[in-house]
Amino acid sequence: MASVRIREAEEGDCGDILRMIRELADYENLLDQVKISEEALRADGFGDNPFFHCVVAEILPPHSEPQEPRVVGYGLYYFIYSTWKGRSVYLEDVYVMPEYRSQGIGSKIIKKVTEVALDKGCSQLRLSVLDWNKRAMNLYKALGAQDLTEAEGWHNFCFRGEAMREFAGN
Amino acid sequence: MASVRIREAEEGDCGDILRMIRELADYENLLDQVKISEEALRADGFGDNPFFHCVVAEILPPHSEPQEPRVVGYGLYYFIYSTWKGRSVYLEDVYVMPEYRSQGIGSKIIKKVTEVALDKGCSQLRLSVLDWNKRAMNLYKALGAQDLTEAEGWHNFCFRGEAMREFAGN
Repeated sequence: MASVRIREAEEGDCGDILRMIRELADYENLLDQVKISEEALRADGFGDNPFFHCVVAEILPPHSEPQEPRVVGYGLYYFIYSTWKGRSVYLEDVYVMPEYRSQGIGSKIIKKVTEVALDKGCSQLRLSVLDWNKRAMNLYKALGAQDLTEAEGWHNFCFRGEAMREFAGN
Repeated sequence: MASVRIREAEEGDCGDILRMIRELADYENLLDQVKISEEALRADGFGDNPFFHCVVAEILPPHSEPQEPRVVGYGLYYFIYSTWKGRSVYLEDVYVMPEYRSQGIGSKIIKKVTEVALDKGCSQLRLSVLDWNKRAMNLYKALGAQDLTEAEGWHNFCFRGEAMREFAGN
């Protein structure tokens, strides 16, 4: 029987990670927004001062079979800071390939990131979910998360590159 | 006439920053959520691998007057990562004391953070706003930001410390 391992991502995983980033964005109907490249992931995640950290879920084949482990999910996160609660972690993406869902792999990824966060002294783990993704929303609520947009009215705002350049140029 | 300067925060500003963090949370009716201390701000923002960066706005008195500059606003930010757009910056807080508002100091703070972000190769600047804070929402929209909760349906979720420990302990 195959088993699942959650491990820290290595630079050589960037091809798999990019493939899954695109699969997740496609699922979210926002694939046209993905501009990232494998080279950018390598440079930004695996240098001296990485902009992000990542764990991957891989399926280990039975010992009797000659296949390589297969990367079937990932969780990409970074450390942030709350001026109310201090050190925190932000889970930017968590994804499991459709054919490997409903086996608890997503929860294992979140658990691994939570352990890293607690080790670093973090007091909260934040993430964002699309309001139509009820499956994900229900999972996070079942795991103990609170919907702060619903509870307190927080809205996410974003200045994109062009707006930033225009603003900085004034 | 007094003038305004936006500069990088120093460790010695942490007392002023904590005072203004509390003023901002009080304005947001969420003061009871503030658990941060001046010591934590010093340790987490001014060590070797800081969890955040901060700029402060200070009023410089006229040369003829003997007063010290007065810190009247701040912007606290950190670098994050979008799996769609790459390097990004998150403006956790931006605040100007009430008696110094409507002079463009908030915009100057955001502009300074935007310049730092562009220098670092960031392609977006994100922030969160409470839905009843129409004044802030209108300012950000006027400056070119998009409300992603409204446009795409993003909700902020948060696992607080207790939920994290329970989850990690399973």
